[in-house]
Amino acid sequence: MAYTITEKIIKNHLVVGEMTRGDEIGIRIDQTLTQDSTGTMAYLQFEAMEVPRVKTKRSVAYIDHNMLQTGPENMDDHIYIQTVAKKHGVYYSKPGNGICHQVNIERFGVPGQTLLGSDSHTPTGGGLGMLAIGAGGLDVAVAMAGGEYYITMPEIVKVDLRGKLKPGVASKDIILEVLKRCTVKGGINRVFEYVGEGVKNLTVPERATITNMGAELGATTSVFPSDEITLEFLKSQGREEDFKAISADAEAKYDMEIVIDLDKLGAMAACPHSPDNVKVIKELEGTKVDQIAIGSCTNSSYLDLMKVANILEGKTVAENVSLVISPGSKQVLNMLAENGGLAKLIDSGARILECGCGPCIGMGQSPNTRGVSLRTFNRNFKGRSGTIDADVYIVSPETAAVSAITGKITDPVSSITAKALDIEVPAEFKINDNLIVAPAMECEKVEVVKGPNIKPFPKTSVLKDKIEKNVLIKVEDNITTDHIMPSNAKLLPYRSNIPYLSDYCLTPCDPDFPQRAKDNQGGLIVAGHNYGQGSSREHAALAPLYLGIKGVAAKSFARIHKNNLINNGILPMIFVNEEDYDKIELMDNITIENVIKGVERKELTLKDAAKGIEIPVKVDVTDRQIEILKNGGLINYMKVK
Amino acid sequence: MAYTITEKIIKNHLVVGEMTRGDEIGIRIDQTLTQDSTGTMAYLQFEAMEVPRVKTKRSVAYIDHNMLQTGPENMDDHIYIQTVAKKHGVYYSKPGNGICHQVNIERFGVPGQTLLGSDSHTPTGGGLGMLAIGAGGLDVAVAMAGGEYYITMPEIVKVDLRGKLKPGVASKDIILEVLKRCTVKGGINRVFEYVGEGVKNLTVPERATITNMGAELGATTSVFPSDEITLEFLKSQGREEDFKAISADAEAKYDMEIVIDLDKLGAMAACPHSPDNVKVIKELEGTKVDQIAIGSCTNSSYLDLMKVANILEGKTVAENVSLVISPGSKQVLNMLAENGGLAKLIDSGARILECGCGPCIGMGQSPNTRGVSLRTFNRNFKGRSGTIDADVYIVSPETAAVSAITGKITDPVSSITAKALDIEVPAEFKINDNLIVAPAMECEKVEVVKGPNIKPFPKTSVLKDKIEKNVLIKVEDNITTDHIMPSNAKLLPYRSNIPYLSDYCLTPCDPDFPQRAKDNQGGLIVAGHNYGQGSSREHAALAPLYLGIKGVAAKSFARIHKNNLINNGILPMIFVNEEDYDKIELMDNITIENVIKGVERKELTLKDAAKGIEIPVKVDVTDRQIEILKNGGLINYMKVK
Repeated sequence: MAYTITEKIIKNHLVVGEMTRGDEIGIRIDQTLTQDSTGTMAYLQFEAMEVPRVKTKRSVAYIDHNMLQTGPENMDDHIYIQTVAKKHGVYYSKPGNGICHQVNIERFGVPGQTLLGSDSHTPTGGGLGMLAIGAGGLDVAVAMAGGEYYITMPEIVKVDLRGKLKPGVASKDIILEVLKRCTVKGGINRVFEYVGEGVKNLTVPERATITNMGAELGATTSVFPSDEITLEFLKSQGREEDFKAISADAEAKYDMEIVIDLDKLGAMAACPHSPDNVKVIKELEGTKVDQIAIGSCTNSSYLDLMKVANILEGKTVAENVSLVISPGSKQVLNMLAENGGLAKLIDSGARILECGCGPCIGMGQSPNTRGVSLRTFNRNFKGRSGTIDADVYIVSPETAAVSAITGKITDPVSSITAKALDIEVPAEFKINDNLIVAPAMECEKVEVVKGPNIKPFPKTSVLKDKIEKNVLIKVEDNITTDHIMPSNAKLLPYRSNIPYLSDYCLTPCDPDFPQRAKDNQGGLIVAGHNYGQGSSREHAALAPLYLGIKGVAAKSFARIHKNNLINNGILPMIFVNEEDYDKIELMDNITIENVIKGVERKELTLKDAAKGIEIPVKVDVTDRQIEILKNGGLINYMKVK
Repeated sequence: MAYTITEKIIKNHLVVGEMTRGDEIGIRIDQTLTQDSTGTMAYLQFEAMEVPRVKTKRSVAYIDHNMLQTGPENMDDHIYIQTVAKKHGVYYSKPGNGICHQVNIERFGVPGQTLLGSDSHTPTGGGLGMLAIGAGGLDVAVAMAGGEYYITMPEIVKVDLRGKLKPGVASKDIILEVLKRCTVKGGINRVFEYVGEGVKNLTVPERATITNMGAELGATTSVFPSDEITLEFLKSQGREEDFKAISADAEAKYDMEIVIDLDKLGAMAACPHSPDNVKVIKELEGTKVDQIAIGSCTNSSYLDLMKVANILEGKTVAENVSLVISPGSKQVLNMLAENGGLAKLIDSGARILECGCGPCIGMGQSPNTRGVSLRTFNRNFKGRSGTIDADVYIVSPETAAVSAITGKITDPVSSITAKALDIEVPAEFKINDNLIVAPAMECEKVEVVKGPNIKPFPKTSVLKDKIEKNVLIKVEDNITTDHIMPSNAKLLPYRSNIPYLSDYCLTPCDPDFPQRAKDNQGGLIVAGHNYGQGSSREHAALAPLYLGIKGVAAKSFARIHKNNLINNGILPMIFVNEEDYDKIELMDNITIENVIKGVERKELTLKDAAKGIEIPVKVDVTDRQIEILKNGGLINYMKVK
């Protein structure tokens, strides 16, 4: 039988279920990664499972989010993660070592393996031929404890890349083209598999840019073949032995097919305020720019920054532009510091930030009021930059660099010299893993240090058979986890402190929501389509849990968030008739009876006695998830199991 | 007649008064500098004076404080400063170009000239033979408008440096020795003049480290001769034509003399929580360290960082230590990026921060709870790091670097190789001023852009003849401007917004102070010795002004803060009998009658009718300051004048 890459990897890791589209399957996880903002909670949950040492082939804890450290909370969290990692068999990547996805590609990723990460951009690993999936921290904790990870067996989309990109057009433009065609909802329960001759013209970091930003499609993940280019990359990282070739069988069947002629692509931008609001740069040329930010897990590789360095060489950043660059890893930064690339960047007037997520997650470098910011990042949700009325455009490093010189959105295709783009792929990357701390051999000797800001995660209880609660908020389509649990520079340092964070839950939609939830002893949320898109953060379920939210009724859910709700014992309910959404109003009193039976039947009824209406909802969950919900969340379920 | 360096420069700039110790003198200001956190207010005040173009030889506006940019406020401020500077004849140093004092030494400082800066570490320029003084923003605004700057003609302290430092002992240790001997109050109304053969063994940046941290003595300023070493430095910066030799006459008379045998000095540290709590490193050796921070305007020069790079070359930062390095300027960073020094730092595991003040002013890199942080900075006031219970030690870059490797406080003298310290002073520094924007030729064409966070400064009114107010707070000795107007990462972005800031005024001493001030429609402050030491920030006067504070009765005042109070129409009153301090209690109702006559006589009486006591206070001000107080502050006075 003929298999796709996705099917081959799943087949090799299948523990529960069968590879039938739409069925739930459980897969064995080889590697896990956490970053610090989701990691503290994941390790608290892991500790609660009382497993002495992780059971994965490789688990790595990264620090890349909370690196500004404007109070003791961040360094306290770093020390907690460092000590808990050391005790339980997890490698620890110190702050300064780089962004989890970039470092994982460089130092740990293995083609054909599965990677589960508590960050929505974990699919970056797909650039290396891994099946790399983003999940909530609790799912990652379960995987570290040896548990399988459950997904809906996805549809598989063939993205057939043909030809070669023109000079000045980047792999970023490929994923922008996919986003333009498929939208931020187009990837739900799908894996995007990149094949075709065009793949051969893309380096591993270029592939990783595409799989990284595949997250914006809402896809389960994206994956490239592991081929001779993958081998060369692993060789250059001193990891030839990790190589394994993987490609789709010639006769493999796909559920959907997209063809992209690379030769025909131009430079593009995702315009405010969504990654799928894509236009060609030509349409935007001349727009005055205030700030340009290069970096993030999408575009901070050695090749990305060397291109930028070559474009900026001998030039000066425009007078009215602030250009900031955050390298993806210590390896990247160190190589640029050795080969003169960094000197070119500095010479041109670029500001060099730390190796970390930085401005991409709103940790610093917020644009001016009503400012225009060009960023090589992956998300441009409104307000994510820290400036609510800023216009953020997502572009390639090439577009960012040429625009930095002119101070206006500028097409790189017509303005870059071939010389600037002629970067040699290093035969050997600089390898110095001295910011990676290996786990202890003698676990029991390691003391786990918990600072005062690290609070226990909220506990759940078994599912009650009757729910009578008020609707505490009604929100529209495409509510992101940035809306549900804002992640700005003031809040991100409190990711270990759910009681504190919950006071900000859903406040971008309604500032009174947290207090209303407290006044009503919890309640229900009503939402439109694609509720919970964006970041994987479990805090978007933990904060509602802390506030007593029992269920969310929506037109549809984003995959990771729905799992996070279930894992935390909150009912995800989907309107059978979408128009019923319009019938519910804020503070309606809703009764749900026979909840347990209903969940088992995957059908519930929301009764509004005052209005005299009944609204049918589906509980679109698997048998396993029914048990999780009945037990009041995954940790309880794991204990029972 | 024989003159000291100080006297020579003052004599050349004397506009008002005579050089009699203790008398007020007015001096002409050649250069001004502002940084962004004090600068926005200074330029608002300058605009209020309606002078179209600055009248100094050189005025420069730097951005070095608010560079984390965790909201739109910072970049809005940058744009305001950039546009107002361009309009009014001020050079603008973009964010990323470096710390004001470092860049000023490199690119603008001129021996023999006067420099007034709205930052307390402006005396850094004394390393180049400038009379460089820190002042409030309003004083700087007046100087930009062509007004003279007033100081008390200082006593002059001769610091006779003999011999040569041992390898591993740094100029930082010289100033720590001075601080140990003289304390943080030892410099009030004094200039420290460094002379002797030992001076010849110190480069300009090393001299600047000493004059910079002379601010911690409370000194008016500190100054070195301008000699052949100064000439070499200016040559290496392409500024030979700016050189002018200045030295003290052989027969010059000093008010006080200190002799330091450099050969006998060891490495030292200022221990928590004061820069004068100095111990030798030997006493502290072995103390476990959590964080090490290298940089700040005190120790971020090319030579400083090259030493660190050489010490760290081929080594690894200790597992439990986070080492952060913030270079002083783009020039420094660029040169290190070109010569491999930066690569050595990165290779060892150092985290490279932006060129700016950064952690020194609590903008990021706060240590862990109860953490130990070794810093090459100039201040270790409790809580300034952003972590209230952290222990911060002030050390040299050499001590910091060797301790980064061991993870414990380590004596550099016994652990550094001669090779590591053998740094060649560059014959030519890299000169690229492309982050400095020249002012416009046609001012009227420049539009000044003010973001929504930039609020007008509070207005004052003429002095009232009767004050009846409650004592709203009573504080102890050595209250710093960090206590009066906290300057943490959450507040520093609001330096253009006094109404917002005032809600935090004096809250480290008493969280209820701002509300109490509002409830009482203003009132009085009672304080111990050295009230208002530390940073020059005028906000420590502007916030009390906004809250209706009419006067501060203290045992003594720090120089800059006292001037800031006067400039903003707040009465600085000194207890005639120090023991009267003990008689006043919180919320005592105090009446001061015949205020205007009293200020003219420089004597007032605080009457507490309820207690039946009268407390005499001095108003230790000059005739000019009497007029300023009567007019209700400097801006009103300037208008009248």
